[in-house]
Parts: sequence; structure tokens; C-alpha cells
Amino acid sequence: MPASDLSDTSRLAIHTQTNKPWTLEECLAGYSAAGVRGISVWRHVLEPMGAEKGGGMIRAAGLESVALVRGGFFPAFGESDRQKALDLNRECLDEAAAIGAPMVVLVCGAVPGMPLAEARKQIAGGIEAVLPHAEKNDVVLAIEPLHPMYAGDKSAINRMAEAREICEKLGSQHVGIAVDVYHVWWDPDLEEEIELAGQGGFISAFHICDWRNPTRDLLTDRGLMGEGCINVKRIRGWVEDAGFTGWNEVEVFSEEHWAEDQNDYVERIKKAYLEHG
Amino acid sequence: MPASDLSDTSRLAIHTQTNKPWTLEECLAGYSAAGVRGISVWRHVLEPMGAEKGGGMIRAAGLESVALVRGGFFPAFGESDRQKALDLNRECLDEAAAIGAPMVVLVCGAVPGMPLAEARKQIAGGIEAVLPHAEKNDVVLAIEPLHPMYAGDKSAINRMAEAREICEKLGSQHVGIAVDVYHVWWDPDLEEEIELAGQGGFISAFHICDWRNPTRDLLTDRGLMGEGCINVKRIRGWVEDAGFTGWNEVEVFSEEHWAEDQNDYVERIKKAYLEHG
Repeated sequence: MPASDLSDTSRLAIHTQTNKPWTLEECLAGYSAAGVRGISVWRHVLEPMGAEKGGGMIRAAGLESVALVRGGFFPAFGESDRQKALDLNRECLDEAAAIGAPMVVLVCGAVPGMPLAEARKQIAGGIEAVLPHAEKNDVVLAIEPLHPMYAGDKSAINRMAEAREICEKLGSQHVGIAVDVYHVWWDPDLEEEIELAGQGGFISAFHICDWRNPTRDLLTDRGLMGEGCINVKRIRGWVEDAGFTGWNEVEVFSEEHWAEDQNDYVERIKKAYLEHG
Repeated sequence: MPASDLSDTSRLAIHTQTNKPWTLEECLAGYSAAGVRGISVWRHVLEPMGAEKGGGMIRAAGLESVALVRGGFFPAFGESDRQKALDLNRECLDEAAAIGAPMVVLVCGAVPGMPLAEARKQIAGGIEAVLPHAEKNDVVLAIEPLHPMYAGDKSAINRMAEAREICEKLGSQHVGIAVDVYHVWWDPDLEEEIELAGQGGFISAFHICDWRNPTRDLLTDRGLMGEGCINVKRIRGWVEDAGFTGWNEVEVFSEEHWAEDQNDYVERIKKAYLEHG
């Protein structure tokens, strides 16, 4: 793990989805050229070559796999769909191990029409069910609380508090929390919850981007740090005060930025990271 | 106040903004024709004739003014802008009194770049500052917790808990909470918070609509009850168990529904209310 230094990019990682137009190969070339050392790998970029070969490419490029993104989606109305979700998460854990990533990020899931309390129960149950496989692979299941605007169909875990409760219940070093500023910045309990998560040893990941005003789309209008209203530096301070020494992962879904030259964009990501991250 | 009866529309009110294409006159004609007895009045529909005359039109049509919508927007970077906000809220209170509405709904405000904790402080201070004017007019300031996706620029009060804390702090019968299912349905603490709000006597209003999956726009893609994933009936049950006996106000912002014939739409609102509200 690189040492903490606020004036360099040694702890900067980028999610491949941030550069959605790029293949894994292009991400590796682009990040390497820019001196970015960490890569969080979205599953679909591994599809063309598979996780084994993809992992070899990442290592050969001198980059470090920060996370496999993403597992989860546990709740379902039928038992067979719930079993499929468990199998999928076990696959994710195998893929993470294959690329040398220490965690799988979990978008926990939600099903329109299913009471959120039931979805939360199925999520905790699903994580518990795949936990032995996570332990076997020595890969952490990192619960990412998602913004409440995704409670309808993407995740019934929408605050740090609910993620922490699952971590406390399962009490395993292989279950943690991925703190993404986009999802949790508005939470009045954020500082306290980060402190509690730190005390429990639950903070597995820190994702950064910004919240635009106005936000023009629920999914693909995130901003680069400095383009919105989130005080990323302050939240990063809380996370580091809570003992987190890992990567700062830039995860930006943005039609606007995806339309730009991706090499130029990576340079702007670095600049934004140094100024506002 | 009409008696509670789940099989009729005696407690159904509609926000004029639900029928955005309509003037106040058209709303009054449309609601009357449909047997809808309550109207929540957005300020701009009063502009052409003023609140005094508008209030007379509402009474003449045999409808009841449920709320004036909306005041708030307290936080600002400069003192003079904060004073302007207070003046605006006093105007709202006067208008509410003029149309016979027992409350002003507050969208409390947020300013991009202002820390949310500071915005929350200014909101509590702003409500306290206009409270004497509310008491003089015998009009309630109804704090509406807004969905966290509006924390950047519309309201720094995003959960029932923060609204309740302001109510508890100010301890006045003229400060309450407008519970809108669209904003709070996702909150894991919702049932408990509704109970607490009921115990404090804070529930001033109940707004209903639905959350669509997917939601295509952050502002204008609300659904009619039954078009989304919110269990409105269950939340209404909690609110009534907490002692609320007021109106069920349909507040739907929807480009889709605004494009329809508004008389037909009011009939569908009634149907949706009886089936899913």
C-alpha cells in the first residue's frame, strides 16, 4: 500500500468505468502513461480475455488491482434467483482473486415492489452465504452504501449505518464498507459513521467524485472532484482520521466526460485529484 | 377536517402543481367537477389575481385551502440575502392567511458550496426568526424533508429526523413537518420517525405520489400512486397510527402527466388514490 501523501498521486486509483470508452488494454496504457498506479476493474472489461489473462496484463503493466467491481444484487423474489445471485458473487470473488484485487465492491441490490426491510434482510443473508468463499479467496466483500435515489432498484443499503450494521452482525475481516462520497455526502451522520466504521475496522475503500448542481441525470452525470458541491477533502480527512490508508479511487460516470479525449481526461483527473481530492 | 374513510375521497387534496398546465380557475373548476374538496395552492397560480382575490375564488368554489406552497430557502451566504428570505417567508405566511390555508410548506433551502451543517443551522435560525409572524397569522411552518438528491441545492433537511429536531428545538405548535412519501420512503428509520413525530404533535401534512423505476428525471418524473415502488398505503397507515387526521395531498410533478388531458388525469388521480393511496 502506498504511503499517504497529499501532494502526489501515489494513492490515486481510477475505476475503468470512469474511462468507459476504453478497453482494459487502453486503460492500462493510459493510466501507466499518466503515472496512475491503481486500477479498479469493472467486470465487463475483463470479458474479452478473462480474469486470468486480464490479471496478467495488469501485473505486466505494473499496475495494482484495487477492486473488482461489482458484485451484489442479492435480493430476488424467487429462491432460484437468489441462488443465481450467490453463484454470481462467488464468480466475482474468484475473478477478484485472479486479478489480485483485495475486494469485490457490492452494489447490494433492490427489487421494485419488495419492501426495503425484506431486501435488507436478503442482502445480509446473501453476504453471509458467500462469506466462506470470500474467506477462502482472502477477498473482502465491500458493501457500498448507494445514494437513496437508487433505493428503488439498485440497493436497499443507502447509508453508512446500515452497512455498518451488517459488518457488525457478520463480524468478519472479509466484510467491509466502500465509502463513496457521491452516495453518502449528504448524510448528517456521516462524520460519526465514518468514525464508527473506522473503529470497527470496516473501511475497505474510498471512492471519490463530485455532485453536480444541477445533476442532469440520475446515473451518468457525476462530476470530477471540484465540479460540484462535495467537500471531498474534508470527507477524506474523516476517512483518514478513522485509520484508512488505502487508495483514493476516482469513480465518475459522466456522459460529458466520456465524450472527451480520454488521455486528456486522465490528466484532468490527476489535476482535480491534487486540487480537490 | 373531513373524517377518515379509506373508501372515499373526502380527505383527498391536490396540489395545483400536479395540474401544472391549469390556472387557479381551471384547478378550481376541475377539482370541483371531480368532487375533490382540498386544494394545496402553489404561489405562482395566485400571481394573476393576488392572494386575497384567490382566496375568495377558492371559498366561492367550495374548496378548502390545505396549504400554501412554498416558502423556505433560508440559507444564503450574505446577511442581506438571508433577510430577503425571511421577508419572503413572512409574505408567504400572509398569503396563506389570505387564502385560509393553515400552513406554509417549507422547502428549506441549500446553497452549493455551503457546508450542510451550516445550512441546517441557518434553516433552524430562519424558521425561528419568522415564527412570531407565523404565530400572529396562526399559520404553521411545515418543514418538508426533501429527498437527499436535493441536498445540493434545494434543501439541507433530508430526513424526518432533522425536521423533528428543529420542531423539538423550537417547541411551537406553529412548526411542524410535511411528510412526503417521495422524499422519505427509502429511510430505514421512517416508521420510527413518524411515530416520534406523531408523539410530538409535529405531523402537519401528508403528501403522496410514487417513485418510478427507472426515474428518468430528478425533478419531473414522479409517478401517480401505483406507478412506482412506494407502499403508500403502508406509510399512510403509519401516519394515521401516529394520530394524523388531515388531508392526503397528491403532489406529482410529471412531464408525462402534464402532457395529458388534465380533466381525465384528475379522474385517474382519484382512481389511483382509492386503489393505492
